[in-house]
Amino acid sequence: MSAVDVVIMAAGKGTRMKSRLPKVLHRLAGRALLGHVVDTAAGLKPRRVVVITGHGADEVEAAVSAWPTGLDLKFARQSPQLGTGHAVQQALPALADLPDDGIVLVLSGDVPLTRIDTLQALIDASGGDKLALLTLALPDPTGYGRIVREAGSPDGHVQAIVEHKDASEAQRAINEIYSGIMAAPAAQLRHWLGRVDNRNAQGEYYLTDIVKLAVADGVAVVAHRITDELQVAGVNSPVQLAELERAYQRGRALALMEQGVRLADPARFDVRGTLECGQDVAIDVNCVFEGRVTLGEGVRIGANCVIANASIAAGAVIHPFTHIDGEQAGVTVGEGALIGPFARLRPGARLGAEVHIGNFVEVKNSTLAAGAKANHLAYLGDASVGERVNYGAGSITANYDGANKHRTVIEADVHVGSNCVLVAPITIGAGGTVGGGSTLTKDAPPGALSVARGRQVSIANWSRPKKAAK
Amino acid sequence: MSAVDVVIMAAGKGTRMKSRLPKVLHRLAGRALLGHVVDTAAGLKPRRVVVITGHGADEVEAAVSAWPTGLDLKFARQSPQLGTGHAVQQALPALADLPDDGIVLVLSGDVPLTRIDTLQALIDASGGDKLALLTLALPDPTGYGRIVREAGSPDGHVQAIVEHKDASEAQRAINEIYSGIMAAPAAQLRHWLGRVDNRNAQGEYYLTDIVKLAVADGVAVVAHRITDELQVAGVNSPVQLAELERAYQRGRALALMEQGVRLADPARFDVRGTLECGQDVAIDVNCVFEGRVTLGEGVRIGANCVIANASIAAGAVIHPFTHIDGEQAGVTVGEGALIGPFARLRPGARLGAEVHIGNFVEVKNSTLAAGAKANHLAYLGDASVGERVNYGAGSITANYDGANKHRTVIEADVHVGSNCVLVAPITIGAGGTVGGGSTLTKDAPPGALSVARGRQVSIANWSRPKKAAK
Amino acid sequence: MSAVDVVIMAAGKGTRMKSRLPKVLHRLAGRALLGHVVDTAAGLKPRRVVVITGHGADEVEAAVSAWPTGLDLKFARQSPQLGTGHAVQQALPALADLPDDGIVLVLSGDVPLTRIDTLQALIDASGGDKLALLTLALPDPTGYGRIVREAGSPDGHVQAIVEHKDASEAQRAINEIYSGIMAAPAAQLRHWLGRVDNRNAQGEYYLTDIVKLAVADGVAVVAHRITDELQVAGVNSPVQLAELERAYQRGRALALMEQGVRLADPARFDVRGTLECGQDVAIDVNCVFEGRVTLGEGVRIGANCVIANASIAAGAVIHPFTHIDGEQAGVTVGEGALIGPFARLRPGARLGAEVHIGNFVEVKNSTLAAGAKANHLAYLGDASVGERVNYGAGSITANYDGANKHRTVIEADVHVGSNCVLVAPITIGAGGTVGGGSTLTKDAPPGALSVARGRQVSIANWSRPKKAAK
Repeated sequence: MSAVDVVIMAAGKGTRMKSRLPKVLHRLAGRALLGHVVDTAAGLKPRRVVVITGHGADEVEAAVSAWPTGLDLKFARQSPQLGTGHAVQQALPALADLPDDGIVLVLSGDVPLTRIDTLQALIDASGGDKLALLTLALPDPTGYGRIVREAGSPDGHVQAIVEHKDASEAQRAINEIYSGIMAAPAAQLRHWLGRVDNRNAQGEYYLTDIVKLAVADGVAVVAHRITDELQVAGVNSPVQLAELERAYQRGRALALMEQGVRLADPARFDVRGTLECGQDVAIDVNCVFEGRVTLGEGVRIGANCVIANASIAAGAVIHPFTHIDGEQAGVTVGEGALIGPFARLRPGARLGAEVHIGNFVEVKNSTLAAGAKANHLAYLGDASVGERVNYGAGSITANYDGANKHRTVIEADVHVGSNCVLVAPITIGAGGTVGGGSTLTKDAPPGALSVARGRQVSIANWSRPKKAAK
Repeated sequence: MSAVDVVIMAAGKGTRMKSRLPKVLHRLAGRALLGHVVDTAAGLKPRRVVVITGHGADEVEAAVSAWPTGLDLKFARQSPQLGTGHAVQQALPALADLPDDGIVLVLSGDVPLTRIDTLQALIDASGGDKLALLTLALPDPTGYGRIVREAGSPDGHVQAIVEHKDASEAQRAINEIYSGIMAAPAAQLRHWLGRVDNRNAQGEYYLTDIVKLAVADGVAVVAHRITDELQVAGVNSPVQLAELERAYQRGRALALMEQGVRLADPARFDVRGTLECGQDVAIDVNCVFEGRVTLGEGVRIGANCVIANASIAAGAVIHPFTHIDGEQAGVTVGEGALIGPFARLRPGARLGAEVHIGNFVEVKNSTLAAGAKANHLAYLGDASVGERVNYGAGSITANYDGANKHRTVIEADVHVGSNCVLVAPITIGAGGTVGGGSTLTKDAPPGALSVARGRQVSIANWSRPKKAAK
Repeated sequence: MSAVDVVIMAAGKGTRMKSRLPKVLHRLAGRALLGHVVDTAAGLKPRRVVVITGHGADEVEAAVSAWPTGLDLKFARQSPQLGTGHAVQQALPALADLPDDGIVLVLSGDVPLTRIDTLQALIDASGGDKLALLTLALPDPTGYGRIVREAGSPDGHVQAIVEHKDASEAQRAINEIYSGIMAAPAAQLRHWLGRVDNRNAQGEYYLTDIVKLAVADGVAVVAHRITDELQVAGVNSPVQLAELERAYQRGRALALMEQGVRLADPARFDVRGTLECGQDVAIDVNCVFEGRVTLGEGVRIGANCVIANASIAAGAVIHPFTHIDGEQAGVTVGEGALIGPFARLRPGARLGAEVHIGNFVEVKNSTLAAGAKANHLAYLGDASVGERVNYGAGSITANYDGANKHRTVIEADVHVGSNCVLVAPITIGAGGTVGGGSTLTKDAPPGALSVARGRQVSIANWSRPKKAAK
């Protein structure tokens, strides 16, 4: 099989997006449109990928370069922008050092949802000696360029792409259109592009003009026809972006349900990244998953949760209104843990089995061993919390002295009372108790009751302030 | 009228659910599918209900037994599973001690939304001497068994159920199909089932085979035909479960709106249990109601609330992001109370009229008398709070000593300052004031100012830690 | 051009709303139905607006009077209610002091979404000497009164409005119906209304009867025909109200996306009031905007936010589950600020550039200068916070002494530790540090470390309470 080189057109401005961001960097499901295309290209294991940039070239190239694609990836700049044929022409020098025996697959950076198997079928259709077009059968093809095949043969070789306005009545009856995606033998492509001209109303060099050159050269032009419009849908406006987002999310929801995941409402469910689910996972309405999330067997996610970059072990229950974002460091939740409602787990939260994190509790860069509990209105940052610790309502680890972060160690079986402050660095020894309302600034010995508290006094007949006269 | 005995088929595995849970225990609107069917059966006031179990029989029987149905309920096990006719045959011994003069209604445990009046009409159609089938008129009946009636009579007696693959062209034009639900005279049913054989491609005993036996016996076979597909829709996959859930919720939303409830978005509204609403209740987007919830006249529920097992009196306003779950003990909210945003009311919260519970406040097993307020970042657990008490921001009732729960009593007109800890058991006498930042461990007298606080000192020219060199 | 006087029918009860609230006061997108109509009327710059009230007249008139319309607005009461013609007749005395040369535009108070340009076209069609009807072309006009035009002319003058039940077969084929909205020369309208009778099945005076009187008088009856059903849709039930709400919100979402705003899900987006967005604003799922909200360039709003009466400057990021309500005083968020998740900003919160407000933090009537941070579980009320202040987790401004509110001043570069209470009125001098767990009741000098804390002691071998025997 011939080697595959991928050329991705990503030079357009996307005026209708009405944005400063180059169009191909707008996000679908949390990933740049161009990122989806690059990921798909990577799935084809290409020899090289060339991204043609233009509007916002610096920004686009910087973004692409930051993605860990593992690809042999080059950029080609198109300036000025003189049409799709001109665009691909700019890309060819970036392939010039490679043997001229490959297949060039031309993709659009704003068409994010093409499937890898579809593109592989297109490449196979080209075979290295044919020009292969990805085509789409549409119920209503009005306005699109029609694929004219050999007379009398719906699967015959392609004779031409005829623009709607130039089409005869018979041609307008054709419902097969060109998708903008093609695969061509590299050597011929180079040859044809050299012969494409701009003698047309727009004064542009059209990539589609190579079809007639191929036909004239006696090279077979074949089509791989699909019916799934989503795969070739481009994004030109925020409305189209939102439509594609919803279609994509419906697809994700359906795929998860078919694996056995129970979704309370597939129309209120968003995945932006990867979501792996064990058996018998149930997800309530209006949840959002971002980055890389793993849910173990039997995990239940309550309504209105936002969960990113986290691994949640079997049997854990995440109650409504929980916000988890592990960012780079990740968050892990142990088996059978109970989290929320109104909990927030931040990067580096490592919760053991059966840990309970309750309402209005924030955990950051802290390890909680099995059975530890922080059920109410608390902050745990940069802390190591032992097994079975009960961390009281309103208690805070004062981990930041205004300049540096310090660690708090709470050993196993400690009971921290309510509204305490543990000023780090500090260690509360195993089995110790911290009296409610205490601010501890030095280590507390194991097994002891440690308190730091004012003496309670009462002033009788005390008269509270009265409302000031106005 | 003949007595009614109900047989519910609940032995299936539900392979496509891809779940360890037996299919009939999957939940629609928070209730097991089989629970819906049992509830509907109970509405018919049957003499007895027999549930046929098989896959996961222990789990299914345990679940059903835990429901307070008030029914004479028996189980019959089907093992191995040799078809629907075989299933019902297994149930008959469980009816053998009853007079043989009843009507047996056969239901499916995975068909949750049949209406009671539909089933009553079917029973009436049987009348005790006819075999009555529940049938459905479908726009596209392709693939389903057709109901063949007496020639030339759309309401004539049923002659046969003909499978799609066996149907003639004329029979395929019939749009009336069998729903899987029937009502039969008990004695004849027993007789027919004894004669059903398994000489067919699957080698199964089909319940539908009794139709031809009835016709052969000269017993009239009648049909009660409905057009509402939802009533006979079964659940075989998570996708179907989600579809049925949404259809069910649309119906609930519509019914409530027709009673006068204003829903900001009927498509973002979930009721799992009972929701009773007084006049002029308004519910904003994306709310979920579970268990038994009552909303009094003029109650307004803000966006994104989750409310379970609570009774909210007239004129109360629940602001967005409020989480209420009364579980077994229930939650009550008094007239004109203001709750949230970001409030959490837990079991045993009993709030009087005009009580205010504000953001990041949790209340559990506590009574708040009229006019009491806890507006910010606070925890009230196992407390009795008097009228007009103002409970300060960040204050906590330390109700748990690590082993036992103790009560806090805050009498009328007390003002608790900010970030206080009240270590229970403790009583703050009427009209007293607790100074901000105090941790009280013993009772505070009425009318007094009680404080427990360190003396304020300042160390001049204090130099804060600097960022450690790396 | 003739002067325009607007008559709005707002006397109906709206029985199907099943509400104590008069129908025209029910809200669409947060604004009374009648408010939408009055706003639209105001856009036509009318000479006078007369609102005809009846059911709940006191409540309706009080509501309208409270709106700052800037209109010459009068009320006319219709009692008893004898039909639409009778209603408009009651309004005419309220116009009697004006020259009789105007055009009277008749609107319905329960038809909220008519566009101003549509009504202006209708007024232009009347021109002061013709009776102009707003009509609607419907795919299925069954049940509605048909517009019968001059034979053979789809744009000819109107001959009659014929009720569905009275219509001939040919007339039933007409798909143009009357919308309920008309514009008439004032003098003729007065004349015709005096001749309308109630000799019909309902015994009512119908406004539509003036069509035949106009024809008889030789006055041209013209129609302005539209196809957008929403513009003339009335609200008669909660179901219709919800449908219209969703249609309205879809339109708002579409309009914003066409301006370049990115919406993660247009079907989960609600605007109730005005929302102005700069370039490159992105709004995640399930957000609600109320009152007057401005979002600067590049602002990102996370999932599940509720934002009312706020101005958010360029580059600010609002994380999920943030609740902002500025009410009358407003909230301002500075450039590049980071807010939430789980933050609450209340009236008078004025946040400077790069301010961070984190989880479970409430800010009310407080100014935070550039770079100030309150990241965890805190309350700032009636406070002035200087630049770069770090306000610790769990700290509270005790601004309320039970009777009066006092201010807290925290000068620049102060570091407030965790779980502090600042008892207002109080000033923490610039560069000062407040030790964690301190309750300060008097001013703290600049540059000093101020603490108020009990001494830490430990009691060895302390035995925690054991679970009480039961």
